[in-house]
Amino acid sequence: MADPARTSLNTATVREQWTLEQCIEGCARHGFAGISPWRDKLAEMGVERAARQIRDAGLQVTGLCRGGMFPAANEAGRAAALDDNRRAVDEAAAIGAACLVLVVGGMPEGSKDLAGARQQVRDGIAATLDYARTASMPLAIEPLHPMYAADRACVNTLRQANDLCDELGDGVGVAVDVYHVWWDPELSAQIARAGRERILAVHVCDWLVPTRDLLLDRGMMGDGVIDIPAIRRAVEQAGYDGLYEVEIFSAANWWKRDPDEVMRIILERVEAAV
Amino acid sequence: MADPARTSLNTATVREQWTLEQCIEGCARHGFAGISPWRDKLAEMGVERAARQIRDAGLQVTGLCRGGMFPAANEAGRAAALDDNRRAVDEAAAIGAACLVLVVGGMPEGSKDLAGARQQVRDGIAATLDYARTASMPLAIEPLHPMYAADRACVNTLRQANDLCDELGDGVGVAVDVYHVWWDPELSAQIARAGRERILAVHVCDWLVPTRDLLLDRGMMGDGVIDIPAIRRAVEQAGYDGLYEVEIFSAANWWKRDPDEVMRIILERVEAAV
Repeated sequence: MADPARTSLNTATVREQWTLEQCIEGCARHGFAGISPWRDKLAEMGVERAARQIRDAGLQVTGLCRGGMFPAANEAGRAAALDDNRRAVDEAAAIGAACLVLVVGGMPEGSKDLAGARQQVRDGIAATLDYARTASMPLAIEPLHPMYAADRACVNTLRQANDLCDELGDGVGVAVDVYHVWWDPELSAQIARAGRERILAVHVCDWLVPTRDLLLDRGMMGDGVIDIPAIRRAVEQAGYDGLYEVEIFSAANWWKRDPDEVMRIILERVEAAV
Repeated sequence: MADPARTSLNTATVREQWTLEQCIEGCARHGFAGISPWRDKLAEMGVERAARQIRDAGLQVTGLCRGGMFPAANEAGRAAALDDNRRAVDEAAAIGAACLVLVVGGMPEGSKDLAGARQQVRDGIAATLDYARTASMPLAIEPLHPMYAADRACVNTLRQANDLCDELGDGVGVAVDVYHVWWDPELSAQIARAGRERILAVHVCDWLVPTRDLLLDRGMMGDGVIDIPAIRRAVEQAGYDGLYEVEIFSAANWWKRDPDEVMRIILERVEAAV
């Protein structure tokens, strides 16, 4: 089982209860090693102030969530997305993030052209990568579960993400979220293929049975059916020695709990179920 | 676009409105070419009576839904599943079905062993195949969307289904349901690999954005984001010349409509959006 001293908090997990300032303070108080903010909370607090407090709290920043959302219906939309991704790179650099996590986007509204969206994603990452390299900010492609292919991310397997990395070269890797990849028959092989250099972040939560909502019904580690320790062993075997970032979207349960209780349970579960 | 004369009704589409007898009569009246019953409706009507009326109505039987559900927590459970699959083979033969569709099953309750469930599925299909061959009844492995990997089917890609077919030999093929496979970056290649011999059934509906329920919120062809004509062209290029079976689970919409209206719209949409 994993060492709870290797826990990072993705702020989405308590986004309904805490501001980023409270998240930073809570991570320090509960002994988390890292934090991964979302950009809306970062903007609310102010980048410089957040950077200082995170540094003062001694927290690693396992990632900034999120860049991406590249496909658009027209050139202006694509250009706006690239602008936004450059800003995200700057913010990630300002807070000392280990990577900028990319949720790459789905098909533009009204489109059924999945292959076209995938091409736009490739081009968008390539363009962002030129800028990210100048800032020495690694980009982490996060394959999302196929149930998000239409509207959130058309990169849906680790194989696809690895193929993109092969094509695009240095400065881009992957974020492995157990929720998105646990079902994949090729998971072990693709984790090994990604290897130490490319696995930039590892996110954990659990898949509940039944799952009552496509977006907001993720489970706490141990409450679902994912063999998380097996995936942890696979990434560690590939050389990953970073933190385990806990990211739970849970409108009906964890977002309604006392956030300090959530933080305590996270540490227990990282030890017992990761 | 597809010829509406090539439409088959999966009875799940109007399961809340019609008995199997009404489905048979409705298919004949609306000019459908085929029907694919579910076993609960078949049992309710009686196999012999259903077989006779389907024959008298001149309908093809594009499949019987469903066999499968192989994994179990113990030997008794696995044996019971095999018994049930043999009965399903007999029923499929009695109604002259083109294939028995297999929804292979997920992990037994309490299990997190996805690889083990997949092994049980392989063994269960192999055992059922021995019997199905004596009845000359093809088994159609239906890969289900990865969001069903835990509790309904741990075969989640056409590649997996094709691999199983390679391993198990004659008498087993695949059912291609656009809802389950549309997101797959390997879809075209795996349809070509399956080829004419293995594609035993093609199911159509659509993926709605947003999708409000993991099980019961499928869309009518044309109402969602799947490029169904592209998939139809791919299966036809592979040599498929059978019917297009319409299977829509829709608690909030199509199951509440007048079934004759549903039948009319299906034919319009097969022509306009398949």
